[in-house]
Amino acid sequence: MDLSGLGEFGLISRIRAGLGKLPEGVLGIGDDCAVLPQKDGRDSLVTTDMLMEGVHFLREDASSYDLGWKSAAVNLSDIAAMGGTPDGTFLAFALPKGLDSDWTDSFIRGYKDVSALSGTPLLGGDTTSSLDRICICVTVLGHCPAGGAVLRSGARPGDLVCVTGPTGDSGAGLKVILDAVPRGEEENILVGRHYRPVPRIEEGKALAAAGVSAMMDISDGIGSDLRHILEASGTGAVIRTGALPLSAELETVCARRGWDAVGFALDGGEDYELLFTVPAEKEPSLGVPHHVIGRITAEPGLVWEGDGGDHEGYRHF
Amino acid sequence: MDLSGLGEFGLISRIRAGLGKLPEGVLGIGDDCAVLPQKDGRDSLVTTDMLMEGVHFLREDASSYDLGWKSAAVNLSDIAAMGGTPDGTFLAFALPKGLDSDWTDSFIRGYKDVSALSGTPLLGGDTTSSLDRICICVTVLGHCPAGGAVLRSGARPGDLVCVTGPTGDSGAGLKVILDAVPRGEEENILVGRHYRPVPRIEEGKALAAAGVSAMMDISDGIGSDLRHILEASGTGAVIRTGALPLSAELETVCARRGWDAVGFALDGGEDYELLFTVPAEKEPSLGVPHHVIGRITAEPGLVWEGDGGDHEGYRHF
Repeated sequence: MDLSGLGEFGLISRIRAGLGKLPEGVLGIGDDCAVLPQKDGRDSLVTTDMLMEGVHFLREDASSYDLGWKSAAVNLSDIAAMGGTPDGTFLAFALPKGLDSDWTDSFIRGYKDVSALSGTPLLGGDTTSSLDRICICVTVLGHCPAGGAVLRSGARPGDLVCVTGPTGDSGAGLKVILDAVPRGEEENILVGRHYRPVPRIEEGKALAAAGVSAMMDISDGIGSDLRHILEASGTGAVIRTGALPLSAELETVCARRGWDAVGFALDGGEDYELLFTVPAEKEPSLGVPHHVIGRITAEPGLVWEGDGGDHEGYRHF
Repeated sequence: MDLSGLGEFGLISRIRAGLGKLPEGVLGIGDDCAVLPQKDGRDSLVTTDMLMEGVHFLREDASSYDLGWKSAAVNLSDIAAMGGTPDGTFLAFALPKGLDSDWTDSFIRGYKDVSALSGTPLLGGDTTSSLDRICICVTVLGHCPAGGAVLRSGARPGDLVCVTGPTGDSGAGLKVILDAVPRGEEENILVGRHYRPVPRIEEGKALAAAGVSAMMDISDGIGSDLRHILEASGTGAVIRTGALPLSAELETVCARRGWDAVGFALDGGEDYELLFTVPAEKEPSLGVPHHVIGRITAEPGLVWEGDGGDHEGYRHF
């Protein structure tokens, strides 16, 4: 879910202005999930995301298996970003007439395979027809301990900025696809990371339990996503671009093609690793593999050490 | 939510076959909402529906206010159909570039106005772009007392079949729109009933509390929707077409145009009144305005008394 995170800021502020006051304790628009306190010591988490053919994927490039995988994965990742446990998913899709049953079977297999990684059942949805293009909307219901959701707003000056894994692979994989680059082993790995991201559910829960201060998943690119944490927290950050974790495959393919690996790591998007901040004294005992890439500052603004560029991430509008 | 209810039966059975076993007590695909038992004496209800431009609405015919209204209404109606209380809605939409801000403002006003009828807040969602057509997906989270959801499967021989209000208005309103019929007062009322259905939330809760045996909302037309109750319950029904409640506006417009009012009442769809069954001894004390239109039978099959037609309702596939 990312009503605040896609760059269509004028639209979002108008929607916010049109809404009334939320019930006590409810967190609505503005984080990876909405948070709804329940009466049983848990908070419910809800997230929803829409994927449009021609905008988010190309039918001729993506297999329906991969599309099913990714449709579920990006939403499960939003639950991970709150430190939550997914309880079930809801799949709504509109399909043009004439798609054969193999397409649907394979889509559901991919959807089910990534859901099975966290044992999350598909509980319902809607199927309808469209005139020509595929449209997919997935909603995930999850939960976390009451008050335990890790928001974007909790970063404090001095906190370390960390990521759970390498960034840039997905963005480089997308470029391999779009540019029809000849594929060797490394290119195939990058393409696989683009199509079949793994939601960091267990990592998110462990990080929440270990007391990280802010968290989100990397959907638009660190350069863009980190700004949401900084805005929500009223802080700034200094990031060392040299500390960004790059996979061996990304470095190999970028060296081969003359591409900018750090650019992919910052702007590429869709890595679905977790970006989080943590008080420095807690960092050594997180118990989850991660990379420290910088530090939260009291002064607003995002400073890149080791790179002069202004990395904004992908914007939809 | 209607993974089972739209006629795309081959698709649904393949999806069902692809799913694993659901957690204990969870009701998934096959009713108006999924039902998820919680630990606090309540069951969570979740429903999701997708509306596609060119399939479910035409941009040039529907105002964005009406579209916002209907997008929320049809999902709130699914909560009503379980006898539930809506807690919040989630709105995902894809909009083509170039839609002006007035369109969005007006859409949100309509969405908010129908949500306000039941005091239901918009809690989150997703906004993205599409290549050319508008796509809307709304998810509603609600609740009901534990075990209190009224399913489609509870109808028993001898139960009375009832509806909460007139049927056919929405279908006739759609025909007024599509045929560009000149509009007088009655035609405008029918068009309004098509664009701005009122979810029967309070009626649904009261009927559930009063012990109705099966319930759903009328989205595809009584002729089609009732079959879902009969299939889920393993029963048949005899319906007196002469007992179908017809509004004065429907009768006036049909008389004026030579249209078949009963045909709209049976096949028109999108009335979003509640269709329910109730043991005969409980019917006098329901406390909710309703019309008795027939009776559940032990013999399978749907018999129309007073009409020889086979009314199937609208099918998407």
